[in-house]
Amino acid sequence: MTSLSGVWAASLTPLHADLSPDSERLVAHVHHLVSEGCDGIVLFGTTGEATSFSVPERIALLDRLVAEGVDPGRLIVGVGCAAAVDTVELTRSAHAHDVAGVLMLPPFYYKAVTDDDLVDAFGWVLGQLGADAPAVLLYNIPQVSGVAVSAALAGQLLERYPDAVKGVKDSSGDLESLRAFLAAMPGAAVFAGIERLLVPGLAEGAVGAISAAANVNARHIRTAFESRSATDIEVLARAREVLSAHPVIPALKSVVAARLGDPGWARVRPPLRSVSAEAGAQLARAIV
Amino acid sequence: MTSLSGVWAASLTPLHADLSPDSERLVAHVHHLVSEGCDGIVLFGTTGEATSFSVPERIALLDRLVAEGVDPGRLIVGVGCAAAVDTVELTRSAHAHDVAGVLMLPPFYYKAVTDDDLVDAFGWVLGQLGADAPAVLLYNIPQVSGVAVSAALAGQLLERYPDAVKGVKDSSGDLESLRAFLAAMPGAAVFAGIERLLVPGLAEGAVGAISAAANVNARHIRTAFESRSATDIEVLARAREVLSAHPVIPALKSVVAARLGDPGWARVRPPLRSVSAEAGAQLARAIV
Repeated sequence: MTSLSGVWAASLTPLHADLSPDSERLVAHVHHLVSEGCDGIVLFGTTGEATSFSVPERIALLDRLVAEGVDPGRLIVGVGCAAAVDTVELTRSAHAHDVAGVLMLPPFYYKAVTDDDLVDAFGWVLGQLGADAPAVLLYNIPQVSGVAVSAALAGQLLERYPDAVKGVKDSSGDLESLRAFLAAMPGAAVFAGIERLLVPGLAEGAVGAISAAANVNARHIRTAFESRSATDIEVLARAREVLSAHPVIPALKSVVAARLGDPGWARVRPPLRSVSAEAGAQLARAIV
Repeated sequence: MTSLSGVWAASLTPLHADLSPDSERLVAHVHHLVSEGCDGIVLFGTTGEATSFSVPERIALLDRLVAEGVDPGRLIVGVGCAAAVDTVELTRSAHAHDVAGVLMLPPFYYKAVTDDDLVDAFGWVLGQLGADAPAVLLYNIPQVSGVAVSAALAGQLLERYPDAVKGVKDSSGDLESLRAFLAAMPGAAVFAGIERLLVPGLAEGAVGAISAAANVNARHIRTAFESRSATDIEVLARAREVLSAHPVIPALKSVVAARLGDPGWARVRPPLRSVSAEAGAQLARAIV
């Protein structure tokens, strides 16, 4: 099994014309990302439009990927849903494939929740899973989910469920937050959720990055991971700046579409909207 | 079919000890609410912990309610999910029972969405449903969902989909917002999403209220609906104030539990946490 460290791409999820998940395009994309230097991919993170798919669609796509030759040891699977019962079902299906780990959002509909509420909520899920649990990475992305996984919460969960909780993806984009997770979760795999914090994060004990931008510039992120050089990170920061002219998920898909000459790659599910092919081509030229 | 107006309870969803939905307790609760003066109930609104249940659980509970004698004409069914495909599936299942209507949240995971994005998102769902769509109430509860349905958006959707979009539940708690919906949706059923705005709303053209507090004080809300008197609304405002000492959904369940002498009624799903039986008894005494 691939260890929970290094450079992981938060993979996009390509779609057929009817907006159903396209496993063929995705398998090719995964192989490409690994060849570019990714240790593995996160299937069904925020960048993968996870929450825009039904539970059966998510289970079926993972099954197809593995059936079509993707090494489950190179997969971390997003499983966190608004409904804890769905989180349990998705985690079991991922664990049945012996994936490297799962990435678990807190339940994200109700917003006025406390850390105690969330200890209960994660605890209910982990209790249902029992001893047969995969490695769980907690997923902190409050600017999207609306519900933070605080460092204090993560530390509590690590202490209570040491056999299951193995780390965190901190997508807050804040170095102070990353430091707080490192302090609260000794020995756990703390991933920067954005490539900009890869090098400063590594210097303080983070294990790597899970990056959306890795869908289009994995090689540069690999280089920065190896060199730990601030200069190499600057390339990545410039790419992010270019992308930020558009919503990031449609922008990333449009870059892949432009590079492959495959306009269908740019499709997204509602509520996201595709960016134009022209914008995609322009972005692809700007991100070397 | 019951018309889309009057006093509707945003029903709680009682649970068995294993936290599965308890149709028997719910059927009794629905009959009680109707006997107290509700025109019907909303199944699976925010108060009903909708997003804490899987799609199969939601479909099965509706099937059971109808099988056990609840009149589908007295049901508005919450159907809005993060994944549009799930929204379509739930809407079809509700429509198959010929319910009075469905209550549709916008997709609520991605937060940086525009009205144009949401026109597309609702449009995708309504396009999948086609001509065979139930009456759709849009659901604005941005303080929980994180994604507002603006009056401008609602007006656009009404104009584009006049055969499907029949109204809105505005749970913003803001009279100005309710006025904006009334102005943007001529002829549509605009419900106040909180009983406090029932009387002022009726005076300006709203058709009624869909209320969480109706789970415990439906008779007072009915009285206020008939009298249109500010004095009758004051009783309701006091009840809300009493409830606000606790998170409202567990508080309401604890009041029902205390009144019925049925502690099991107080169960909630994570991430919500039950309030104590003592607190429930105290609340039940305070809300007459």
